[in-house]
Amino acid sequence: MKEIRSIHNPTAQMLRDLKNAKARRETGLFVVEGAKMVEEALPLCRTLVVEDGRESEYAAMIAAADEQGCEVLLVSEPVMQAISTAKSSQGILCTTMIPKEPEQLTGRRIVALDGVQDPGNVGTILRTADAAGFDGAILGAGCASLYGPKTLRATMGSIFRVPVRQVDDLAAELETMKARGYAVAVTELGGEDFYVGCPRGNAVLVIGSEGQGVSSAVSKQATHHLTLPMRGGAESLNAAVAAGIMIYEMARETV
Amino acid sequence: MKEIRSIHNPTAQMLRDLKNAKARRETGLFVVEGAKMVEEALPLCRTLVVEDGRESEYAAMIAAADEQGCEVLLVSEPVMQAISTAKSSQGILCTTMIPKEPEQLTGRRIVALDGVQDPGNVGTILRTADAAGFDGAILGAGCASLYGPKTLRATMGSIFRVPVRQVDDLAAELETMKARGYAVAVTELGGEDFYVGCPRGNAVLVIGSEGQGVSSAVSKQATHHLTLPMRGGAESLNAAVAAGIMIYEMARETV
Repeated sequence: MKEIRSIHNPTAQMLRDLKNAKARRETGLFVVEGAKMVEEALPLCRTLVVEDGRESEYAAMIAAADEQGCEVLLVSEPVMQAISTAKSSQGILCTTMIPKEPEQLTGRRIVALDGVQDPGNVGTILRTADAAGFDGAILGAGCASLYGPKTLRATMGSIFRVPVRQVDDLAAELETMKARGYAVAVTELGGEDFYVGCPRGNAVLVIGSEGQGVSSAVSKQATHHLTLPMRGGAESLNAAVAAGIMIYEMARETV
Repeated sequence: MKEIRSIHNPTAQMLRDLKNAKARRETGLFVVEGAKMVEEALPLCRTLVVEDGRESEYAAMIAAADEQGCEVLLVSEPVMQAISTAKSSQGILCTTMIPKEPEQLTGRRIVALDGVQDPGNVGTILRTADAAGFDGAILGAGCASLYGPKTLRATMGSIFRVPVRQVDDLAAELETMKARGYAVAVTELGGEDFYVGCPRGNAVLVIGSEGQGVSSAVSKQATHHLTLPMRGGAESLNAAVAAGIMIYEMARETV
């Protein structure tokens, strides 16, 4: 077990830099924090980092990491604090290779995000898609970074279970999905009642950005223009809540 | 129009103190921030606070406040920054009387929160209840402060539209609701499939806390024990998302 006591250590600095999307892109690595998330990430782990004095607490994970040839680092509390983005670190984190994305998504139900900027919303929508048994997710340009700490935390581990494609041109990706037989459902003001128009076969559900909704290029690709009913005084719903309502309703249709 | 240039001014200090729940309780006032929210709060406004140099931008609201006999203060930027909790203030806020709560809630659909701690979740659930046309909300002990800035922001104005009762003993409140003919639906592990068991008559939907779920005292009052289906690998949903899915489903039943 290698030990790191200084935040100036090059490995410590590399780990700290992974807070930035640029460093994640360049290294192909991201940081997974917290005992529960690290446990889920363990099969993909590259480096396991444990804080001094917590070796016995995490003995099982250290042994498992060792066994699969993954590097284990013991670090001082200041080093852990420098690397970690958590308000109160659990004293364990690991680095993981950013997985290779599938060439195409398959299955009945896909969720696509069109510029959803809030990392909590992106992560929460992935978590909901996982809970509902959706088969994959597409992230278009302008979405919060998939492997950033806030997004990861909000996924609660679903990042390791839902296949994701990140694309620059979401409209083009949706055109391809349509050619493969998928309906493309977008929600926007003035659409058909969601519960009436919700597509029943293979479908991609598109969630628009928090402020602007779905972009016009994406809207042009839609086969279904839908609206969730607003029965009271509120003009709109939180993006993750609206996504959750629609995802769960579409999941029912597949039973 | 009174002007305040110093953060040591007693009125400025009183306004700043309203960030704390204790000061809100003692004064019976809360602060509403941002142009859109202030516009909704205007009929209930006590003091309208506008930042120097933005009088013309907010001329209509200033006139309306004046007309209804509400005090208007012009404050310097440092004073506005001291009072405001927003990352970037819109240069307008107002104080509002905390409304008198109804003696009892009426209508077909009520949502109750059992120790929901995150202010974003509390506010988002109120917003969703409003959008779905629910008739009221009950906040039990341990919930985030209803009139705190984060909760208010997340309601997006629904705070002014949904009647709310705050109670110390949620179990006793639910017992009373049952005596008045309401079903009490809680979600917990091992309950009946939500879509099968969802109550159809007058009902209170109880949302449990983020970590612990519904307390045992509240669970004992339930007429319906329900579970949202988890079809994928996720163990649970975000509290506001789970609430949203169930609120929208229960709203459909009333149509």
